[in-house]
Amino acid sequence: MAIPVYDSAPSLQFGGALTEMPSYEAAAAVILPAPLDRTTSYISGTRNGPRELIAASAQVELWDEELGADVHERGIFTLPEMELASGTMQAALAGLQRVAGQVFDAGKFLITIGGEHSITSPIVAAAAARHRGLTVLQIDAHADLRDSYQDDRDSHACAMRRTLEHARIVQVGIRNISAEEVDALPGLETTIFYDWNMRNDPAWIAKAVDALSPAVYVTIDLDGLDPATMPAVGTPEPGGLSWRELTGLLRRTFEQRTVVACDVVELCPIPGLVSPNFIAAKLVYKLLTYKFKS
Amino acid sequence: MAIPVYDSAPSLQFGGALTEMPSYEAAAAVILPAPLDRTTSYISGTRNGPRELIAASAQVELWDEELGADVHERGIFTLPEMELASGTMQAALAGLQRVAGQVFDAGKFLITIGGEHSITSPIVAAAAARHRGLTVLQIDAHADLRDSYQDDRDSHACAMRRTLEHARIVQVGIRNISAEEVDALPGLETTIFYDWNMRNDPAWIAKAVDALSPAVYVTIDLDGLDPATMPAVGTPEPGGLSWRELTGLLRRTFEQRTVVACDVVELCPIPGLVSPNFIAAKLVYKLLTYKFKS
Amino acid sequence: MAIPVYDSAPSLQFGGALTEMPSYEAAAAVILPAPLDRTTSYISGTRNGPRELIAASAQVELWDEELGADVHERGIFTLPEMELASGTMQAALAGLQRVAGQVFDAGKFLITIGGEHSITSPIVAAAAARHRGLTVLQIDAHADLRDSYQDDRDSHACAMRRTLEHARIVQVGIRNISAEEVDALPGLETTIFYDWNMRNDPAWIAKAVDALSPAVYVTIDLDGLDPATMPAVGTPEPGGLSWRELTGLLRRTFEQRTVVACDVVELCPIPGLVSPNFIAAKLVYKLLTYKFKS
Amino acid sequence: MAIPVYDSAPSLQFGGALTEMPSYEAAAAVILPAPLDRTTSYISGTRNGPRELIAASAQVELWDEELGADVHERGIFTLPEMELASGTMQAALAGLQRVAGQVFDAGKFLITIGGEHSITSPIVAAAAARHRGLTVLQIDAHADLRDSYQDDRDSHACAMRRTLEHARIVQVGIRNISAEEVDALPGLETTIFYDWNMRNDPAWIAKAVDALSPAVYVTIDLDGLDPATMPAVGTPEPGGLSWRELTGLLRRTFEQRTVVACDVVELCPIPGLVSPNFIAAKLVYKLLTYKFKS
Amino acid sequence: MAIPVYDSAPSLQFGGALTEMPSYEAAAAVILPAPLDRTTSYISGTRNGPRELIAASAQVELWDEELGADVHERGIFTLPEMELASGTMQAALAGLQRVAGQVFDAGKFLITIGGEHSITSPIVAAAAARHRGLTVLQIDAHADLRDSYQDDRDSHACAMRRTLEHARIVQVGIRNISAEEVDALPGLETTIFYDWNMRNDPAWIAKAVDALSPAVYVTIDLDGLDPATMPAVGTPEPGGLSWRELTGLLRRTFEQRTVVACDVVELCPIPGLVSPNFIAAKLVYKLLTYKFKS
Amino acid sequence: MAIPVYDSAPSLQFGGALTEMPSYEAAAAVILPAPLDRTTSYISGTRNGPRELIAASAQVELWDEELGADVHERGIFTLPEMELASGTMQAALAGLQRVAGQVFDAGKFLITIGGEHSITSPIVAAAAARHRGLTVLQIDAHADLRDSYQDDRDSHACAMRRTLEHARIVQVGIRNISAEEVDALPGLETTIFYDWNMRNDPAWIAKAVDALSPAVYVTIDLDGLDPATMPAVGTPEPGGLSWRELTGLLRRTFEQRTVVACDVVELCPIPGLVSPNFIAAKLVYKLLTYKFKS
Repeated sequence: MAIPVYDSAPSLQFGGALTEMPSYEAAAAVILPAPLDRTTSYISGTRNGPRELIAASAQVELWDEELGADVHERGIFTLPEMELASGTMQAALAGLQRVAGQVFDAGKFLITIGGEHSITSPIVAAAAARHRGLTVLQIDAHADLRDSYQDDRDSHACAMRRTLEHARIVQVGIRNISAEEVDALPGLETTIFYDWNMRNDPAWIAKAVDALSPAVYVTIDLDGLDPATMPAVGTPEPGGLSWRELTGLLRRTFEQRTVVACDVVELCPIPGLVSPNFIAAKLVYKLLTYKFKS
Repeated sequence: MAIPVYDSAPSLQFGGALTEMPSYEAAAAVILPAPLDRTTSYISGTRNGPRELIAASAQVELWDEELGADVHERGIFTLPEMELASGTMQAALAGLQRVAGQVFDAGKFLITIGGEHSITSPIVAAAAARHRGLTVLQIDAHADLRDSYQDDRDSHACAMRRTLEHARIVQVGIRNISAEEVDALPGLETTIFYDWNMRNDPAWIAKAVDALSPAVYVTIDLDGLDPATMPAVGTPEPGGLSWRELTGLLRRTFEQRTVVACDVVELCPIPGLVSPNFIAAKLVYKLLTYKFKS
Repeated sequence: MAIPVYDSAPSLQFGGALTEMPSYEAAAAVILPAPLDRTTSYISGTRNGPRELIAASAQVELWDEELGADVHERGIFTLPEMELASGTMQAALAGLQRVAGQVFDAGKFLITIGGEHSITSPIVAAAAARHRGLTVLQIDAHADLRDSYQDDRDSHACAMRRTLEHARIVQVGIRNISAEEVDALPGLETTIFYDWNMRNDPAWIAKAVDALSPAVYVTIDLDGLDPATMPAVGTPEPGGLSWRELTGLLRRTFEQRTVVACDVVELCPIPGLVSPNFIAAKLVYKLLTYKFKS
Repeated sequence: MAIPVYDSAPSLQFGGALTEMPSYEAAAAVILPAPLDRTTSYISGTRNGPRELIAASAQVELWDEELGADVHERGIFTLPEMELASGTMQAALAGLQRVAGQVFDAGKFLITIGGEHSITSPIVAAAAARHRGLTVLQIDAHADLRDSYQDDRDSHACAMRRTLEHARIVQVGIRNISAEEVDALPGLETTIFYDWNMRNDPAWIAKAVDALSPAVYVTIDLDGLDPATMPAVGTPEPGGLSWRELTGLLRRTFEQRTVVACDVVELCPIPGLVSPNFIAAKLVYKLLTYKFKS
Repeated sequence: MAIPVYDSAPSLQFGGALTEMPSYEAAAAVILPAPLDRTTSYISGTRNGPRELIAASAQVELWDEELGADVHERGIFTLPEMELASGTMQAALAGLQRVAGQVFDAGKFLITIGGEHSITSPIVAAAAARHRGLTVLQIDAHADLRDSYQDDRDSHACAMRRTLEHARIVQVGIRNISAEEVDALPGLETTIFYDWNMRNDPAWIAKAVDALSPAVYVTIDLDGLDPATMPAVGTPEPGGLSWRELTGLLRRTFEQRTVVACDVVELCPIPGLVSPNFIAAKLVYKLLTYKFKS
Repeated sequence: MAIPVYDSAPSLQFGGALTEMPSYEAAAAVILPAPLDRTTSYISGTRNGPRELIAASAQVELWDEELGADVHERGIFTLPEMELASGTMQAALAGLQRVAGQVFDAGKFLITIGGEHSITSPIVAAAAARHRGLTVLQIDAHADLRDSYQDDRDSHACAMRRTLEHARIVQVGIRNISAEEVDALPGLETTIFYDWNMRNDPAWIAKAVDALSPAVYVTIDLDGLDPATMPAVGTPEPGGLSWRELTGLLRRTFEQRTVVACDVVELCPIPGLVSPNFIAAKLVYKLLTYKFKS
């Protein structure tokens, strides 16, 4: 008794239904929807992020006019959305680490779509176990370096402190950091490019990339972007990177380093406003283009 | 190279992630998300209906207090969302008819989630080919009996005229019909219970069920409900059935007839308003409970 | 030099563009959009009411299945939206009275679309000058009988007190009245059917109609409806009339009295929610059908 | 150095600014805003409930036309909004119990505004310690009788199970209960009036009140109302009480029993839709009127 | 029998009601609302664009502080909104071409307000027939050069390919083009300024204007702007022109060329967000100011 | 009989509940919520500005990474929201002037949160009476220099003309001024930095600060910001200051002049969009940081 096969690919996969869905074996890239949403403060809704990003991705043009390339033929396989709403936080994070490890072992390029920033640490753990000397490039408004927040060490406010247990970090666009985090900085393996002064130095992109080791994991908290461009985040902060700055930094990173995996997190869809969902989807496709353009 | 297996069921299936997803073989019921959205007038958005209904379904309580039963253990298998946004309308409808036929041949109870009302005709065609003398019970504000609308015979405004080519119809809750449709009524095999007078007869539910043959297909256009309860439709009409009336009619239909399949169509999610999505999801689960309670 | 003539009627007129726009001479009914919006408290937005009601009216089915009639061929002429946002309140009200008088003198049936309830008084003044012994039937949640409100005698909270200067009133659905208004009641020519007790009397509709004189002006403040059906009003009040009750009252009124003009006021469109706009448009068409059905 | 005194009362207190704020000593009633919002599933936002309810309360008419009374002169004192977003759940609940106790000891009638349903248990604890044989009248869609939910005994899904540790309960409007709760019912001191059958008995209101002891605490989860009237809740359920049924039940309860305190919980404001906030505010004022009308 | 004349101009015309509406004969400029909305993908709503833009225009200041001029006294006549929702696409486009031609023959400066981009081609056809060697300046995120899209040669995705049949094009701000369009470029009379590199050349505005012939038609798809400024479009693309860049380009174009007509298309109003509607209205007035400032 | 004391500070005060609320005596800064909302044209809603800004302020990080300081320990006391919805405009403005004066006399740094721009004039009157030679620095899109608007001299469109009666003004970011205001400029003590040309001069910030006298009052109409960043205003104007420009101007002003008080006005919250509320709250905290950093 066979499950019915459709005439075209089903619709909720990254890139929409323009093409047939590749087999897992044939795909060079894997999209993992991870709608973890437990500790996000202020307004909730990152649980809806992967679903809305993937729905918007059907509108992304497959040809990239910047690089003159269409990389979707390398194969983009979208895993089903993980169920992360129940059970313990520890089980959720362990599940993420295991799944990411399997994707890495299959030789795929992984892009995980959040959900809150807490998903980064277990995926970096899986990546660091496979790439010695991995550095994390973090684009974010918040340092997320608290050791615990409201008695919770797995809070998204601690996302990068947990990540530091697995890899060194370069943080870009930071414009929200607490006194407690500043006090802890001397003991942490992190390099911070603060938003308020990094762009006083026209060479900041080059310097940020220079701070990275050969193997890089990229984590993009969408609130690293200017909230004018990206209002659909839980804790918007004025200032931040423009689309041009963000893509400039990413392109140089992909050109000069080996990016082993990425995540795009904290999309908090605003009912009735599709523009942020689409921009996040386009960002994911930009990452794929920069990775596979050659 | 195996696709990673999650620790629990993936999240975008009917009923959420409370339980493991049953195998297709073991499932008694199949949910088919069919976001067809081409001809809906006024406000668009039925393309988002299946996705939002299924997301809301994670909140539906599995125990039904009316009948004292939990039917989810009979197995509810959610097919992937069909891709119906491109290609010709004829191809989309043919694909629906083929997929529905396969589900029927596997002996499953099928509930299709629209999308616009045009999906009903091909599914009824598949059902009528397997159940001689099938009648369709339609709950709707609109008669949908035009032979063509804006030169399009597959418009949702013609949904039931197309369906009449395969089965007789009993229409309930009708409060929007054109002069052109009224003129055509004498030649059509349909029984209409108009909203403005059916409830002057306390026995209207019994009479509607009496008009049905032993085998019944149920199609529920959500605008058949009072828009106070269900505002999330493309063409709301004041008046209409209350939740109590709708479930009363459905319960008696399932008790006294053999319902072979159902659809729930025309959910047009309103950004920021979850109540209609949840009510639609609960309605789908009510259909399953009425079907499998014994 | 002639203004270009379109191939069909322009789109922003009541009933949409299904038919050619009749000439003013040939039209039996006139729609007057009057977006007065100055004193509405709580949330503003009645200034958008006429525009959204007329946009929604394009979706109203012209055939009325309750009475089996299509009255649009009697001719419905939509005047341009009046400009009432600037200038003094007195000038705005005087302009309304003059325009309404001209429409009456041309022998047309006038339906004015608000805008706030303050528009009723000058139109009733024009009607009462032409119909001796006119009674006003008011459907409303609020008595609106204050002599002044925040030092303003033209506030919508005083709409019916001003109207009383021209005609006797029958008020239906009232569930908001102040102590000050209750004290004034003995001296006022008004009959109130309070929402909380009128429906304890199954004959309330007959009694309300019996209280009317032969010539009647109907003013419908949309908050007279249950806010479940009609949330798009500035000051919603729980309770109120259902669609079935409202249309039952209106039908009997038109059958047993001569209705000389109507208004539908206080539509405060809610962004993203079209259902209330459509219900208001359908109500206007119901008034036309009840008027011209014979 | 004195804090500046305004010419009128400040604006964010129940009933708006129509009158001067009474002194705490002089007030017969106390409003306690308790925006607890930790475990609400599906959509968050009950943290905004007290703020929006109180903002809407400025529009509530002080004269009650049903009872012919204006009770605001008995004095309504609004406490500042409690800060319940941080710290442990146990501390938050203990704080609520202590504050409620102080208000009771001062001889005030307390209405607490949630926030999620978890606030009820500590307040009932405080009330039961002062009123022997207290019964709780609960209007709700959900039984909320789980012993724990997702390993949390203080979840709102357990609100009434916790409350049962302090008082017997009569539950009205229930239409969502799990198999696990049904199994536990025989051992629990609760009487349930299920929504799907209670209104088959025209005497249900009398029977519900008969089930109450002389001293009563009333807890109203707004999802007990029909979601057509009250969509602004976290987990809407079709069916439920109408405004007329709810106020009928409440009026009889106040007439025949001594109500010692109330709460109104789970208002989840919907951005852009003021009607539910206003209805909730009117409900609070109805409670005050029923309490003090004599 | 005369239609009533108001004391001031009616309200739904460009510029609001600050002044009397000029006669068609006396007006130098004509605004044509053309809410064509058939093929727009993703989110619909351009049909509401003209209505919302004109409603917002009442807030535009008539004095332009950049040029120190108030051009409204040259006369701005707003035609009624065309009815383009029914009938065939070919008839709609032919109607547009005919109406535009009549306006041109009357010697007026025409600004058409969309509606989707498909309206441009017939208007350019009318303009090119009257201005030999006309060039089109297109501001847009999308090249819109497909020969057909989903089997439809009149799709908005083909808008400029159709326009090329009447005039040469200069395209600015392009950041979405398909492989199929890139392949076709060598045979097309178009000059593209891609968004990702045009601003690396500080002289890009001068070069774009230099590429234009003496007579110019300007078509502005609002998605050419950065979506931070203009989110209310059907298919937003990150990047794009700032307000300063757009007005800089337009001012130089009007100063150095003869602009014969313009259109502003693809406004897809977002419920609850007025800023984009206002910006679009201000853009239309800027075009008028640049045209008539001398 | 004591009012209950909470375990932590109540929640609706600036900065949220991270710390205990200081006593009025101990506080160096005072926040005055002044939701005046009477004459705002186009869309209303500034009455909700203070409430939403203060709710958002709970998310502002207390450590400022730009200056390396946490100033909240200087004490920030939030006064209750003033009631300004009823009574005459003159009484409201007189109340504001009196309260501001009391705060000044207590030696506090006052930040008033609007509400519409009309609140500025009485507060400047109080400040100017205590600081000889005070200059006002106004960031705004609109000159607001009309002597009267729609016959109202207290309209927000006249806010700065009224303010000029108490102090000289420097206006920055202006991009909306009427012909009538331009004509009056020669006789007014104001210096205008127009948006369209001020940034052609890289030294514009220095020049704006140079134009200020030693004692400065800062009034920030949020529409001075680019609407991409700040769409939540009643009359958005394209162009305007970026966050970087605004904070650069403010920092230099605080460094080189003595700022005696500030206001932040015209926040018109958009339902469902929290980003503008948060940015406004962060701006208020930036003002406090710049004031107390040393």
